[in-house]
Amino acid sequence: MERQFLESVFKAQKFSAKDGALLADTLVDADLRGISSHGIQRLAWYSRMIKDHTLEPERQPKILKETPTSLLVDANKSMGQIASAFTMEKLIAKTKQMGVSLAVIRNSNHFGTAGYYSRMACKEGLIGISTTNTRPLVVPTNSLEAFLGSNALAFTFPADPHPFVFDGATAVVSSGKIQVLAKKGEQIPGDWAVDENRNVLHDAKTVEDNLAKIAFSEDRPGGGVLTLGGQDEVNSNYKGFGNSLIIELLTGILAQGSLSADTNKGKHDFSQFFMTIDPALFGDLDVLKANATKMFDRIRHLKHLPGTKIMIPGDREYRHYDENLEQGVSIDETTLAEMQAVGDEFGVTVPTEETVED
Amino acid sequence: MERQFLESVFKAQKFSAKDGALLADTLVDADLRGISSHGIQRLAWYSRMIKDHTLEPERQPKILKETPTSLLVDANKSMGQIASAFTMEKLIAKTKQMGVSLAVIRNSNHFGTAGYYSRMACKEGLIGISTTNTRPLVVPTNSLEAFLGSNALAFTFPADPHPFVFDGATAVVSSGKIQVLAKKGEQIPGDWAVDENRNVLHDAKTVEDNLAKIAFSEDRPGGGVLTLGGQDEVNSNYKGFGNSLIIELLTGILAQGSLSADTNKGKHDFSQFFMTIDPALFGDLDVLKANATKMFDRIRHLKHLPGTKIMIPGDREYRHYDENLEQGVSIDETTLAEMQAVGDEFGVTVPTEETVED
Repeated sequence: MERQFLESVFKAQKFSAKDGALLADTLVDADLRGISSHGIQRLAWYSRMIKDHTLEPERQPKILKETPTSLLVDANKSMGQIASAFTMEKLIAKTKQMGVSLAVIRNSNHFGTAGYYSRMACKEGLIGISTTNTRPLVVPTNSLEAFLGSNALAFTFPADPHPFVFDGATAVVSSGKIQVLAKKGEQIPGDWAVDENRNVLHDAKTVEDNLAKIAFSEDRPGGGVLTLGGQDEVNSNYKGFGNSLIIELLTGILAQGSLSADTNKGKHDFSQFFMTIDPALFGDLDVLKANATKMFDRIRHLKHLPGTKIMIPGDREYRHYDENLEQGVSIDETTLAEMQAVGDEFGVTVPTEETVED
Repeated sequence: MERQFLESVFKAQKFSAKDGALLADTLVDADLRGISSHGIQRLAWYSRMIKDHTLEPERQPKILKETPTSLLVDANKSMGQIASAFTMEKLIAKTKQMGVSLAVIRNSNHFGTAGYYSRMACKEGLIGISTTNTRPLVVPTNSLEAFLGSNALAFTFPADPHPFVFDGATAVVSSGKIQVLAKKGEQIPGDWAVDENRNVLHDAKTVEDNLAKIAFSEDRPGGGVLTLGGQDEVNSNYKGFGNSLIIELLTGILAQGSLSADTNKGKHDFSQFFMTIDPALFGDLDVLKANATKMFDRIRHLKHLPGTKIMIPGDREYRHYDENLEQGVSIDETTLAEMQAVGDEFGVTVPTEETVED
């Protein structure tokens, strides 16, 4: 039902049927995987982007430059998902010929979860890498103001019973994770965000309001999300800073688009970077896959803290996927109200159960 | 003088003149850059590896499989530096033809700093990526025992006045950084290492002794170095864990060598992964370089905590390099004693000043 509602909204917003189905699939997929930060709760934001012409639903991506191992793509201000799936399909074909290929997309928008595209590569027996820059949110080491995006990275590797899927912001958390807590009225449980003096904040609503100012206006209030490694240089937060900078270089810089820092003014464009690698360059896929599977199993069974589990990246989302396919996805009150407003605007009926099934 | 001493030792250890010069250059280069964890303090370890035949100085790397975009190399149990420089030279040539290329090395040893090889690519106007697995040292999220290596990653991007050089363990710190503190009798200033109950330890000597058991024996005492993100899952230490696992997949798994977890028994082999990318696939090198330089300058000048600096990866090491070329590198007492022992064994005179100049 979530899928049908989304497809109807996207159709009313003038996306083609194919593009609307892709967009709906990426949001439903995120909710099913328990990544509610990147699920239907983004719909209200996507709808606002159409209104302010950050996003042009009828446009299609264009290839600007192509070699046997690379693509430079102009997303043409359409939704990030559309240019990203288009690009990843082409990279898969190139890598089957050349062993490796990579692409950069400019003039793009939010692309959903990075993992969606890396998993496309993995289904074909390839290693998939997907990255994006974002609105400015993240404070570099020692900085009192945000500059970097949360800058997602996804990396997939074939394994059983499910692929290795590392998928997340290079920052401590994505802004979506804070939005979800704020919508539920919950507190931030860790050292995720700081104020203009780099003091850690725990009230999700306060942080969300501040991040919204940083990300969506030209105000420059201080503070933001921390880099991985936390508040203090002594715990190597400059490594998290470095990881985030690598994504800025591969996206905004290589694409000659905006830096995350500048997406809150004027052009509002995001850039994305993708790469696929054929592991068969180095060994038999089945052997490599079996070896990876064995390694993950050994790690899952290491001695661990009582009451905890050791989970391999992907374990949590594939478990959620199976459970949620059975039980349906539960959606918070704020997001339901936003769905209602979007539904009213475009004449689409919102599914009535609080538990909205796929 | 450090260089001359090292070249004489390596000659006496039966490395070729060319290989000995390369090895000396990588250690001197690390000391000059202020990365003393990977400088001459590693000599005693390298010498022990020759004795126990983990390392065979007279062997040369062999290419096992080659395509226009890839290489699979057998380091043939020689020193990691030798196969790595050999491989990076070949990748630079391939990427100038194909835009991107990548390589995996098996049967290797410690390769010094990862940054050394990535900087080779950067000198040619390319993006350079270098990674290695290591001895087991790092505890996965929630784990009470080590499994992962410290798993270094280096990434370079052309910029002025020096390239972007991100170079370090994916773990909070490398074991070398703890060794340096232990040799100086200093305490660990942050949350870097834990005991068998995941309680943070601060005594560098205690931690070093424990890591030595984990890394160099088949004992399996608990504890180890933390993943980036620290002690607690709530601060996303699973992201640091994921970063480390990505390196295990690209090295031990793709190379079909040992996992970090298994390098403490039997084969003692490390694996390495390298990649070079031509930014000219996507834009003019001079423009991209100027844009990266501008971004770094903006970040350096963000509002920051009083008494701190915002440093771009590479800033610290290039500053040290210039200073140390002038002033010479200072070497701790323990390392001087180790140099003396190695010098005595191979009939090479140790430079006498406590400050050993290049």
